[in-house]
Amino acid sequence: MQTAKIDLLETYLSLYINHFEVLNHMDTKDSPYVILDVRNAPSAVKKDQIKGALAIPAKDLPSKVNELNKEKTYVAYDWTSGTILGKQALLILLKAGFKAYELGGALEGWKGMKLPIETLNE
Amino acid sequence: MQTAKIDLLETYLSLYINHFEVLNHMDTKDSPYVILDVRNAPSAVKKDQIKGALAIPAKDLPSKVNELNKEKTYVAYDWTSGTILGKQALLILLKAGFKAYELGGALEGWKGMKLPIETLNE
Amino acid sequence: MQTAKIDLLETYLSLYINHFEVLNHMDTKDSPYVILDVRNAPSAVKKDQIKGALAIPAKDLPSKVNELNKEKTYVAYDWTSGTILGKQALLILLKAGFKAYELGGALEGWKGMKLPIETLNE
Repeated sequence: MQTAKIDLLETYLSLYINHFEVLNHMDTKDSPYVILDVRNAPSAVKKDQIKGALAIPAKDLPSKVNELNKEKTYVAYDWTSGTILGKQALLILLKAGFKAYELGGALEGWKGMKLPIETLNE
Repeated sequence: MQTAKIDLLETYLSLYINHFEVLNHMDTKDSPYVILDVRNAPSAVKKDQIKGALAIPAKDLPSKVNELNKEKTYVAYDWTSGTILGKQALLILLKAGFKAYELGGALEGWKGMKLPIETLNE
Repeated sequence: MQTAKIDLLETYLSLYINHFEVLNHMDTKDSPYVILDVRNAPSAVKKDQIKGALAIPAKDLPSKVNELNKEKTYVAYDWTSGTILGKQALLILLKAGFKAYELGGALEGWKGMKLPIETLNE
């Protein structure tokens, strides 16, 4: 059982990327990361997003995944880690052959740490 | 590792049902779904619940699981997705041979989207 | 698929310990549990913690894990269950041969149930 626990934790944790890693590359030219906002909500409801994020709602991702850049690493987030949208997006991205992670802590965690966001205009 | 990630995501996501799917059948006669409130709290603490939910606290589920209907699909939820009660209930239901899911986003997500709830009388 | 779901739920749930189990031993002499606060934040930000917790930020755990007691069972928690810090700490502890769990519901759930906390002095 100990081995099953360790295997599960290792695979589960490998789905996530830490906000620090993303933050370190945020304002660099040629950052390897593209932050992907997969919230299924209009801008008026979302109000703001992680600075520089590309907004593709999870429901639209299957039809738009082929427009993405295989050179980049995608970092998907939803409102909180308590939803399944981040993992649904991640599954679509990984199955399509992209490098991708879910953002640890999601938008809630990012805002809780006062990390850079930007207002959305509707 | 990519295969292990995809396998984990597919199995993990298969535990959940989306609120839209549940909502679509909510007021239909003979809905295949029974929404199951598994919060371990008295009504006075719970205050409200998802409209039409059947309240069986997770701690009582082992002794009550045989009263459930094998024709239905059970959708369990707790306060938030951050607790383990929804998954504990799901495990009891699946092991007893029921069709069951955990509600994506839990009660917190349902309320956040202003979906139908009902007040509980004490 | 039913078997894969049940296997995943059983392993996933085996990572967690219920707050009641921890609470039952809280004020007993020779409690088998040591509650481990793994938040990566200074005391001024943390403000309070679970009563009697040992604070070792997850980032410091790899270098401090050898100071821990193999007779005890460690119960790690972060702010919420939505972060990955609790699981990162758990992986470090299990790989080092310690008995360890993540606290179901994390600090957020503990406080939500009004369980004992203590103020931190800065």
